[in-house]
Amino acid sequence: MTMPSIAAQVDIALGERSYPIVIGTGLLGDAVVSQRARAGSQALIVTNTTVGPLYADQLARALGARHGAVRVLELPDGEQFKHWETLNLIFDELLAHGADRKTVLYALGGGVVGDMTGFAAACYMRGVPFIQVPTTLLAQVDSSVGGKTAINHPLGKNMIGAFYQPQVVVCDLDVLKTLPPRELSAGLAEVIKYGPIADMAFLDWIEANVEALRACEPAALAHAVRRSCEIKAHVVGQDERESGLRAILNFGHTFGHAIEAGMGYGAWLHGEAVGAGMVMAAELSRELGLVDAAFVQRLTALIARAGLPTRGAVIDPVDNAGRYLELMRVDKKAEAGAIRFVVIDGPGRAAVRAAPDALVRQVIDRCT
Amino acid sequence: MTMPSIAAQVDIALGERSYPIVIGTGLLGDAVVSQRARAGSQALIVTNTTVGPLYADQLARALGARHGAVRVLELPDGEQFKHWETLNLIFDELLAHGADRKTVLYALGGGVVGDMTGFAAACYMRGVPFIQVPTTLLAQVDSSVGGKTAINHPLGKNMIGAFYQPQVVVCDLDVLKTLPPRELSAGLAEVIKYGPIADMAFLDWIEANVEALRACEPAALAHAVRRSCEIKAHVVGQDERESGLRAILNFGHTFGHAIEAGMGYGAWLHGEAVGAGMVMAAELSRELGLVDAAFVQRLTALIARAGLPTRGAVIDPVDNAGRYLELMRVDKKAEAGAIRFVVIDGPGRAAVRAAPDALVRQVIDRCT
Repeated sequence: MTMPSIAAQVDIALGERSYPIVIGTGLLGDAVVSQRARAGSQALIVTNTTVGPLYADQLARALGARHGAVRVLELPDGEQFKHWETLNLIFDELLAHGADRKTVLYALGGGVVGDMTGFAAACYMRGVPFIQVPTTLLAQVDSSVGGKTAINHPLGKNMIGAFYQPQVVVCDLDVLKTLPPRELSAGLAEVIKYGPIADMAFLDWIEANVEALRACEPAALAHAVRRSCEIKAHVVGQDERESGLRAILNFGHTFGHAIEAGMGYGAWLHGEAVGAGMVMAAELSRELGLVDAAFVQRLTALIARAGLPTRGAVIDPVDNAGRYLELMRVDKKAEAGAIRFVVIDGPGRAAVRAAPDALVRQVIDRCT
Repeated sequence: MTMPSIAAQVDIALGERSYPIVIGTGLLGDAVVSQRARAGSQALIVTNTTVGPLYADQLARALGARHGAVRVLELPDGEQFKHWETLNLIFDELLAHGADRKTVLYALGGGVVGDMTGFAAACYMRGVPFIQVPTTLLAQVDSSVGGKTAINHPLGKNMIGAFYQPQVVVCDLDVLKTLPPRELSAGLAEVIKYGPIADMAFLDWIEANVEALRACEPAALAHAVRRSCEIKAHVVGQDERESGLRAILNFGHTFGHAIEAGMGYGAWLHGEAVGAGMVMAAELSRELGLVDAAFVQRLTALIARAGLPTRGAVIDPVDNAGRYLELMRVDKKAEAGAIRFVVIDGPGRAAVRAAPDALVRQVIDRCT
């Protein structure tokens, strides 16, 4: 077991809902995880059948000192289970054991576990505290930070949810060592995203360190997680409930969601769909005259080096572009049927805008 | 059709989440209902199979001027349908028609419709605006005000929900004329409640006007709704998320929830269970030496005059008190298995405290 070591702390400033993201090694078995939990309260660790056997015992031991009782609930693993029936397993478990309003939920897993545990915490007795312990790179740099929680509906991804902030996010870099390479690459999609929308110097750094990141070198991971969280913290701190600016964090996600929905949730990893989606969104930005072809090529090359797909899936053999458009119209950012695209408005800056259907069709046809 | 007339407005002061409660006659068909809605946005009226046929058309016409499209969804009527499957009908309807983030939900009905519509609004795309149009006395004086929304779980009432404030509450007193007498009485339970916990002068007034209220005299109803909302507004304004003071609004509800859960949701109306529950809570207060027997008798007599039960149900033939205790331990106000009772700490003042099981058993045995 690694000795606990904190490499960085990033603070999300949201008034009384502010909280720290603690980044380091050996943290999963350390008291830092439960530092903000009420002493003596019950704890429920929500995890999945993949992560639970690896890390739940270690976390449960670390929590034992602070909590009166620590229970573990393993959910089935995968985006296809991110729906009401699985969410209800959390409520069943809480109610079966008389969990009260002080009970603390710990989300030990990737984005799916974090989204469902956070939403369960938002709803159980109208709100109980929760702590994020993300075990994937994607969750550490993106989904565990910022308080977006949700489940999917058959007609749309993340359609039912809440803005609900955790008390702490603990990113233990050690756990990334057991992450399958495909999952690590998926996480890199969200790391790369922060470059074009906010920080071209960070994009330079990722280009120079992408092999180190794929090899799980701790110093490289620590920097990537820290800088990603800093950028996300800055954006979320200005727009907690996504009334404007925050939408830029969805760069690549509008096209990506269409791929995920069109292929059936779980066929493509979220990060893979975002990888291809960023290429499509960059190409759309170029068509709109906002960036040049060299920028699109540079971003595409980095996405490929990260081990991610750079072409979107064909989701309908007859009218592929039409199916993309149909799915994108039910995206949450759509307004009165108009799709809102996150585009790159010059390198390092994002904007949200509509685009003519004909142009979007061209981009889809070219990029799939 | 009555000409619209506003009798009173009560403001809920919650900073940026502040909103008015508008009380009067002829309001359902008036533009006041949609005054705060965004022009041109979609609207969905959520109602039930009892209220819908009576009032949905009238409301839809009034909304037509403001909204681009107005749709109506009728849910099955009754507390036994206040669960996830029914809630999901709202999400299905919204997604099937491409409802976006600006869509406004209108809750046209009693407490069940209000609770489910409010929770759906809290969760749909992580939050869309909603407006309460309560059609029962109980909803007008209590459940539509203050932002508590929820659904039931097989193991507990209102266990899954959110604090989510409406944009406006419109109380049209005309609709109470079509309310069955049993439902009107159930609403009076929540009106009566405000006396012992906060305002003995209001209790005097109710004693003098209970027959006028049961006869639906508009001036009496207007005063009862207004004063009830004022007291609730005062309490909620100080404690939106029920971390303390707000719990006093649950006077009679801890025993009442046990009756509802023990008999099966829907067998007793919520207000009926609260009526008997207030007698039990008053008797507990007397046992604790906080009020005298005359106070308990006075409150019991008024509850009877309102047409409400004054004795709790026998919910278990073998160990009735034990079953009450078991059900009360999963109440949301319970902490670490200790039931928190709202008691009357001298007439006009409420407090929240624990009580010895043996004493509670005595009270249950005496009051059922």
